[in-house]
Amino acid sequence: MPQVSIIMGSDSDMPVMAKTAEILDMFGVSYEMRILSAHRQPEALGEYVKGLKASGCKVVIAGAGKAAALPGVCASYTPLPVIGVPMKTSDLGGVDSLYSIVQMPTGVPVATVAINGGANAGLLAVQMMAVYSEELAAEVELYRASQAASCDDKDAKLQAEGYKAFL
Amino acid sequence: MPQVSIIMGSDSDMPVMAKTAEILDMFGVSYEMRILSAHRQPEALGEYVKGLKASGCKVVIAGAGKAAALPGVCASYTPLPVIGVPMKTSDLGGVDSLYSIVQMPTGVPVATVAINGGANAGLLAVQMMAVYSEELAAEVELYRASQAASCDDKDAKLQAEGYKAFL
Amino acid sequence: MPQVSIIMGSDSDMPVMAKTAEILDMFGVSYEMRILSAHRQPEALGEYVKGLKASGCKVVIAGAGKAAALPGVCASYTPLPVIGVPMKTSDLGGVDSLYSIVQMPTGVPVATVAINGGANAGLLAVQMMAVYSEELAAEVELYRASQAASCDDKDAKLQAEGYKAFL
Amino acid sequence: MPQVSIIMGSDSDMPVMAKTAEILDMFGVSYEMRILSAHRQPEALGEYVKGLKASGCKVVIAGAGKAAALPGVCASYTPLPVIGVPMKTSDLGGVDSLYSIVQMPTGVPVATVAINGGANAGLLAVQMMAVYSEELAAEVELYRASQAASCDDKDAKLQAEGYKAFL
Amino acid sequence: MPQVSIIMGSDSDMPVMAKTAEILDMFGVSYEMRILSAHRQPEALGEYVKGLKASGCKVVIAGAGKAAALPGVCASYTPLPVIGVPMKTSDLGGVDSLYSIVQMPTGVPVATVAINGGANAGLLAVQMMAVYSEELAAEVELYRASQAASCDDKDAKLQAEGYKAFL
Amino acid sequence: MPQVSIIMGSDSDMPVMAKTAEILDMFGVSYEMRILSAHRQPEALGEYVKGLKASGCKVVIAGAGKAAALPGVCASYTPLPVIGVPMKTSDLGGVDSLYSIVQMPTGVPVATVAINGGANAGLLAVQMMAVYSEELAAEVELYRASQAASCDDKDAKLQAEGYKAFL
Amino acid sequence: MPQVSIIMGSDSDMPVMAKTAEILDMFGVSYEMRILSAHRQPEALGEYVKGLKASGCKVVIAGAGKAAALPGVCASYTPLPVIGVPMKTSDLGGVDSLYSIVQMPTGVPVATVAINGGANAGLLAVQMMAVYSEELAAEVELYRASQAASCDDKDAKLQAEGYKAFL
Amino acid sequence: MPQVSIIMGSDSDMPVMAKTAEILDMFGVSYEMRILSAHRQPEALGEYVKGLKASGCKVVIAGAGKAAALPGVCASYTPLPVIGVPMKTSDLGGVDSLYSIVQMPTGVPVATVAINGGANAGLLAVQMMAVYSEELAAEVELYRASQAASCDDKDAKLQAEGYKAFL
Repeated sequence: MPQVSIIMGSDSDMPVMAKTAEILDMFGVSYEMRILSAHRQPEALGEYVKGLKASGCKVVIAGAGKAAALPGVCASYTPLPVIGVPMKTSDLGGVDSLYSIVQMPTGVPVATVAINGGANAGLLAVQMMAVYSEELAAEVELYRASQAASCDDKDAKLQAEGYKAFL
Repeated sequence: MPQVSIIMGSDSDMPVMAKTAEILDMFGVSYEMRILSAHRQPEALGEYVKGLKASGCKVVIAGAGKAAALPGVCASYTPLPVIGVPMKTSDLGGVDSLYSIVQMPTGVPVATVAINGGANAGLLAVQMMAVYSEELAAEVELYRASQAASCDDKDAKLQAEGYKAFL
Repeated sequence: MPQVSIIMGSDSDMPVMAKTAEILDMFGVSYEMRILSAHRQPEALGEYVKGLKASGCKVVIAGAGKAAALPGVCASYTPLPVIGVPMKTSDLGGVDSLYSIVQMPTGVPVATVAINGGANAGLLAVQMMAVYSEELAAEVELYRASQAASCDDKDAKLQAEGYKAFL
Repeated sequence: MPQVSIIMGSDSDMPVMAKTAEILDMFGVSYEMRILSAHRQPEALGEYVKGLKASGCKVVIAGAGKAAALPGVCASYTPLPVIGVPMKTSDLGGVDSLYSIVQMPTGVPVATVAINGGANAGLLAVQMMAVYSEELAAEVELYRASQAASCDDKDAKLQAEGYKAFL
Repeated sequence: MPQVSIIMGSDSDMPVMAKTAEILDMFGVSYEMRILSAHRQPEALGEYVKGLKASGCKVVIAGAGKAAALPGVCASYTPLPVIGVPMKTSDLGGVDSLYSIVQMPTGVPVATVAINGGANAGLLAVQMMAVYSEELAAEVELYRASQAASCDDKDAKLQAEGYKAFL
Repeated sequence: MPQVSIIMGSDSDMPVMAKTAEILDMFGVSYEMRILSAHRQPEALGEYVKGLKASGCKVVIAGAGKAAALPGVCASYTPLPVIGVPMKTSDLGGVDSLYSIVQMPTGVPVATVAINGGANAGLLAVQMMAVYSEELAAEVELYRASQAASCDDKDAKLQAEGYKAFL
Repeated sequence: MPQVSIIMGSDSDMPVMAKTAEILDMFGVSYEMRILSAHRQPEALGEYVKGLKASGCKVVIAGAGKAAALPGVCASYTPLPVIGVPMKTSDLGGVDSLYSIVQMPTGVPVATVAINGGANAGLLAVQMMAVYSEELAAEVELYRASQAASCDDKDAKLQAEGYKAFL
Repeated sequence: MPQVSIIMGSDSDMPVMAKTAEILDMFGVSYEMRILSAHRQPEALGEYVKGLKASGCKVVIAGAGKAAALPGVCASYTPLPVIGVPMKTSDLGGVDSLYSIVQMPTGVPVATVAINGGANAGLLAVQMMAVYSEELAAEVELYRASQAASCDDKDAKLQAEGYKAFL
C-alpha cells in the first residue's frame, strides 16, 4: 500500500485532484488514487477506508463538492489524518463544499485546505510525513526555497522591464 | 418497526427533533427515535439504516448541524425517502447545515426542510404517507383547516381589539 | 391524470425540469408538465393545484428561480407532498431561489432539493411512490446499483489507465 | 375602505408592522390591518387582495419572513403598488426574507424596504399618495424637517456636552 | 417636465435602465433620463433632484451599482417616491448594490426592486401613477393579462409539442 | 478648525466613534465631532464637508450603518482622505454597512476599516498625519511598542500561571 | 521543546484554545502555549516559529479571529504542518476568520478546522503524530470508541426514558 | 526611495495593481513596485517594509487575494499608512480577500478599498499626500473636475442622441 490515499467522489473532481498527485510525484511520495462516492458507494468506501491504516497508508486526502460528505465520512472510518479538498461549484462558488467539509463536529476533524486546493492538500500530506523524515523535510525546504526564488525572479523581471511587461 | 425513523446526530438536536415527534404523535403515526452519529458511529448507523425498509419503515427523518452529513449518509444506505432537517448553528446561523444537507449529488436526494424545521419534517412525512391513506389525508386537511382557523382567530382579534393588543 | 405534476414558472426553467421528466420516463412514472407562473397566473395555478389530488396525482414537483414562490404556493393549495427545485440565478447563484423555497413556515413544508436539482426531484418523487410499490422499489435499487457500477467503471479505468486519462 | 391595506402573514410580525400603522396614524392616512397567511390561507388572501382596488385602496403593504411569499402573492392579485417588508429571522438575519421579497420576476414588482423596515414602508406609502395630495406632500416635508431638526438637536447636545454624554 | 425621472450613476448602467425606459414608452408615460453620479457630481445631482417635484415630476427611478448611494441620495433630496435598481456586479453578484440601496434608515425609504430589475422599476412607477389614473390602471391590467397570455401560449406549446421543443 | 473631523449619521453610532475620539485624544490630535446624517441633512452635510479643507482639516472620519452612504458622500464633497467605519448591524452583522462603504467607484475612494473599527479609524488618521510629523511618528512607534509589550505581559502571565488563569 | 506549539494572537482566544490544551493533556502529548500576535509582534513571532522545528516541535496549532493572518504567517516560517483554528466573531460569525485561514495560496497550506474548533485542532495534531506512534494510535482508537459509547449511552437513555427526558 | 511602495503577492495581481501605477504616474507621484509574497518570502518582505519609512517612503499600497495577509503583514512592519487592495477571486468573488484585509485587529489598521480597486488605492495615496502639498491638492481637484466633466459629456450625449446610442 502506498503512503497516501487520494479519494474523490466523482471523476469530475480529477482536474483538482490531479494537482495533488503531481505534488506527491514531485516529492517521491507513493499514493493510490480512487474514485469512490460517499453517497453512491457507502459500503465500498467504508471497507476501503477502514483498511487503510493496517495496510500502511499514512494520510488520506479526499476531495468532494457541494454536500461534500466524503472527507468527513473518510474521517469517521479511520484514525489516520484526513485532508479535505472542497471543490469549486458553479452555483455557490464552493462555499457549500467548504462548509460541508470544514465544519466537522468535535472528535472527527478534517484538515481542510482552500477551495480547489488540490496542490496544497498534497503539500500538507508531505509536510505531515516530513515530520518523521529528514529527507522529506529537506525537500520541503527546497520546495519552499524554489517558490521564493520564483517570486524573486518575477520581481527581478519587474525591476528590469517594468510592470507593463506583465500585462 | 414503526412507520417513521427519526435520527439525530447528537442529543443537542433534540429540541428541534422533538417537534417532529410531536407532529407524528398528533397524526397517530408511529415512529422510532434514535441518536446515531454519522461521524462517530458510521457502521452502526449504516447497519441500522440499511435494515429500515425491510422492517417496514416508510420514511426516514434525519436532523444534523454544521457539516451535516447525517441525512445524506442515511440516503446513501436506503431507497426510502429521507427528509433532512438543518440545525441552526451559533456561528453561521445554519447556512452550513443547510448547504451540507440540500446540495446532494444526482442520484441521492434529501428532501430538505427549513433550518430548525423539525415540525415541518414531520408534516412532510405525514403528507408522503397520506398519499396512500385516505384517513391520513383527511387528517392533513383538518390540520390545514385548523391552521387557517388559527389565523382567522388572530385576525378577528386584530379587528376587534386593534393592533396594540398584540404588542 | 398522471401520477406526478411537474410545474415550472417559466419556460426558461425547462433545461432543469427536463431532467425531472427524463428520470420519471426512466422509471415509467407518468407525469404532466405545466408552465404556470405563481406571480403571473395566481388563480389559474390555484385552480390547477387544488384539483390535483382528486384527479389522482400523487406528488407535485415545482421549479422556480429568484423570489421563487411557486413551490410554496403549490404547497398552500394541496395536501400532496410538494418537491421544490431552486433554479441557479445569474446574480446570486441560486441562493435567492433556495432560501425562497426551503425556508417555509411551520405547517406548509416544501421538500427542497439542490440548486438545479431537477433529476433529484424526479428521483425523490419516485422514492416516495416506491414506498407503496415493490416494483418501483426494485427499480430504485437497480438504479442505485447502476450508479455504483458507473463509479466502479470509472475507478477501474483510473486503476488501468492512470489519472491523466481523465484530464 | 381605507387608503392602505397592511397585511402580515403572522401575528409575530406585529412589532414591525405596528411601526407602519404608527406612521400612517401620524400622517392621518386611513388603513386596514389584516393577518392573512399566503401559505395557510391562499384563497382568502387572494379574494381579499383582488377586491382592494375596487374598494378604494391605494397601496398595499405586506410584511413576511423566511420564505416570504406574501408580498409577491399580493402583487400577483392586484395592480396596486405593493410594498414588501422583510422580517429579520433568527437564523439567517432576514436575508432569506429579503431575497424572497425583492427578487421578483419581470412584470410583478414589489417595492422592497429594509429588513424590519415597517416605518419606512408606511412612509413610502405616504410618499406615493403625496404625489397627488399637496396636503400630504406638505406633511412629508414637515416630517423630513422634523427629522433633520432632531439630528440638529443631537448635534447641538454633542457640541455642548461632549461625546461622553452619549455613552 | 416629464412624469418620471430616470437617473443612473454611470452609462455602464444603461443596458439595465434602458429596460425602464422601454416600459415607460410602452405605457406612454413621459420620462427624462439623466446620467448623474452621486459620488462625482454631488451638487449637480442635489440641485437636479431638489427641483424635480416643483417641475411636475411624480416618481424618481435611480439605478446604481456597488456602493450604490445614488437612490438613497436622491431620496434625501426629494419627498417624491424613489425607486432603486441595484446593478449586478462582477465580483459580488450585486449583493453589494442591493444592501447599499435597500437598507435605508428610518425616514428615507427607497422602493427597491430586484438586482438588474430595470423593467420592474418602470412598472412600479406606472403602478404608482395608475392609482390616480383609470386609464393607466386599465393599461396595467392589459399588460398583466398579456403576460398571463404569454405564459398560456408557452404552456399550450408544451402540451402540443412536448418539453423537448423547449430545449 | 481641528485636524480631524469625525462625522456620524446617528448618535446610536457613538459607542463606536467614541473609540476614535479616545485614540485621537491619546495622540493629542485635535478633532471636531459632528452628528450629520447623509440621508436626513444632505445639504447641511455637503456644506460642512465642502468647507473642511479650507478650514485646515486634514482627515475626515465617517461612521455609518446599513445603507451607509455617509463616508462616500463625504468623499464626494472633499479632496481630503476619508476614512469609513462600517457599523455592526443587528440583522446582517454589518456586511451591509461594509459593502456600502468599501465598494466605492473609481475616482472617489473611502479608506475602510473593520466593522465597528472606530479605534483603528483614529489610528489610521494619526498614521496619515505622522507621515509629515516626526513627533507623531515617534508616538505611533511608542503606541505600537506598548501594544507589543501588552502582548508580552499576557504571554508572561501565561508562562507563569498557565492557561487556566485566563478562563 | 514540547511536541506541539499552540499559538494564539490574543488572550481573548483562550476559551477556544484551552480546548486544544485539554485534548493534548488527555493524550499525554506535550505542548507549549504562546500568546504572540502576527500583527503586533511580527518579528518575535517569526523568530519563535522559525526555531520550532530545530527544537523538536512536530506540529503547530494557531488560532486567530477576523483578518486571521496568524496561521498563515506561522506556515510561512516553518515547514512543519500548521493547523488553523478560525475564531467565531461577533459581527460576521467567524466567516471572516475562516476565509482568512483556509484560502491559502499554493505552496503554503494551513490545515483548517471548524470555527471555534479548538478541540479538533488538538485531535488532528494527535492523529498526525499517531501515524508514527502505535501507542498514540491506540489511544486515538480508544477515544473514538469512547465517543461512540457516549452516543450509545444517550441513545439507550432515549430508548428507556423517551425524548422528553432530553428537553 | 520613491514616495509610494506598491507591493503585490503575485504577478497575477498585476492587472489590478497596474491601475495604481497609472494613477500615480498621472499625478507625478514617484513609486516603487515590488512582487513580494507574505507567505513565500516573509523575511524578505519584513526587511523591505521595515526599511521603507527611513528611506523616505510615505504610503504603502499592498494588493493580495484569497487569504490576503499581505496588507496586514505590511502594516505590522511599518508605522506608515498601508492601503489594501482585495483581489477578486474566481470562487468567492473576492469576499475572502476583502475580509482578510479589512477585518484587522485594533492597533494595526489597513485602509481598505474596493475589490479590484487598484486605481482608487492610488488615488487614496495621492489624497493622503495632497494634505501636505497644495500642488497635489490642486491636481486632485482637477482630477475630480475632469471626472465630473466626463459624466457631463455622457449626459449631454444622452440628451442629444437618446439612450439607444449607449446600447
